[in-house]
Amino acid sequence: MQRYFVPESAWNGNIVTIKDDDAHHIHRVMRFKEGDQVICNHPDGSAAICNLIAVGSDEVRLEVEDWLNESVELPIEVTIAQGLPKGDKLDLILQKGTELGASSFIPFQAERSVVVWDNKKIEKKMKRFSKIVKEASEQSHRNKVPEIKSPMTMSALLKESQKYDVKIFAYEEEAKIVDFQSFGTLLNKLKKDQSLFVCIGPEGGFSPKEAETLRDNNFYPVRLGPRILRTETAALYALASISYHFEELRCN
Amino acid sequence: MQRYFVPESAWNGNIVTIKDDDAHHIHRVMRFKEGDQVICNHPDGSAAICNLIAVGSDEVRLEVEDWLNESVELPIEVTIAQGLPKGDKLDLILQKGTELGASSFIPFQAERSVVVWDNKKIEKKMKRFSKIVKEASEQSHRNKVPEIKSPMTMSALLKESQKYDVKIFAYEEEAKIVDFQSFGTLLNKLKKDQSLFVCIGPEGGFSPKEAETLRDNNFYPVRLGPRILRTETAALYALASISYHFEELRCN
Repeated sequence: MQRYFVPESAWNGNIVTIKDDDAHHIHRVMRFKEGDQVICNHPDGSAAICNLIAVGSDEVRLEVEDWLNESVELPIEVTIAQGLPKGDKLDLILQKGTELGASSFIPFQAERSVVVWDNKKIEKKMKRFSKIVKEASEQSHRNKVPEIKSPMTMSALLKESQKYDVKIFAYEEEAKIVDFQSFGTLLNKLKKDQSLFVCIGPEGGFSPKEAETLRDNNFYPVRLGPRILRTETAALYALASISYHFEELRCN
Repeated sequence: MQRYFVPESAWNGNIVTIKDDDAHHIHRVMRFKEGDQVICNHPDGSAAICNLIAVGSDEVRLEVEDWLNESVELPIEVTIAQGLPKGDKLDLILQKGTELGASSFIPFQAERSVVVWDNKKIEKKMKRFSKIVKEASEQSHRNKVPEIKSPMTMSALLKESQKYDVKIFAYEEEAKIVDFQSFGTLLNKLKKDQSLFVCIGPEGGFSPKEAETLRDNNFYPVRLGPRILRTETAALYALASISYHFEELRCN
């Protein structure tokens, strides 16, 4: 069933009012009629099967038929902090990362980030990013749309990371050291509803200085397999492994 | 160090002769000179540090300095059979699948594949695909370049799959059945050097008839997390989980 993420202001008791792009999608793209059903997701993560009661070009009204008791969210909260990569790689990370269950994304300006985003570009980019994660959330039947924070400096990132239960960064050099803890060991430390902060470098990875700073701030270095991954593949490896560990590894 | 996959015919005792694109890359792109070092990978999976002894536009000669004792190949052999997807999604699957350690790829014509490849296109496509996996192998420091088989029908695919130790297919409907075995349980069945066949449907997944055929041929249905993944994300989820399971889950 088609699914729409509907902002809080659109909910009024059992009545939901959808406007703008999603109204257009319901009316013109899907050509739904009164009596058809879609799923509406509330920003709090809940979702309801709703009946269309009035379909217009500008506005669609729906009535809640049944609240769903489903969740496909990861049992832990995962934030992906991504060193600004080149080109449109961040688009791929946001789309695939949303499918794979990330709770939020933070782009950050790393020492080896080749691109610098000026303030003019950021607003336009953030709009596109929001659209990407919303559509990926709908497609993958997520209960929540991940949050995308504005690009941060490393020091803002460190401050932001303080509230997380476990913090890791992808660092192949470090992983060669004998006393490092494996990614598996670190995931085993996490319990349901706890939070994990995953920090991925841009092309070229972290500088030794950044790695030292991260370690000083209680980030654990991890290896994501022995092969050298492109920056956009690292976040996807981490998220797929987290899903596998918490959602599919059970033995039955 | 820069790495090149060199065909068997180029090796003669301790001397390696590189021609064509790679010679151009060494000479014109990297501007290496006599005395510089690169890593040459032999098709058998071994690799050597080599000294450049003669650099020309058409041909480069190297001498083996030291054989490397390294392997970053997955401990099990994984074949990804991918239902033909739309657009250039197969490019992404081949590039990321190579980074993540796949041994071979088999595109196949699934019931719900929207595209049909005619024979004229296949040759051109296969050439591009070979280039993608070779470059991704060099970039990710693989010991071997994955093989890409020509597109198959479902019946040819079933025949091909017979020699594998464990066979799975991504099927969310099936995963809702109570007695299914989790992806983790199935990976636990595999020992070092055994082989796994992973079959992924195109957009829209497998038809119920295809799912029945696969099950009749000893394929296990698996769920790749509870979220709905796009077809190109499914192969990457499977490979990342396999790497995590066999290479990173160890507890130390």
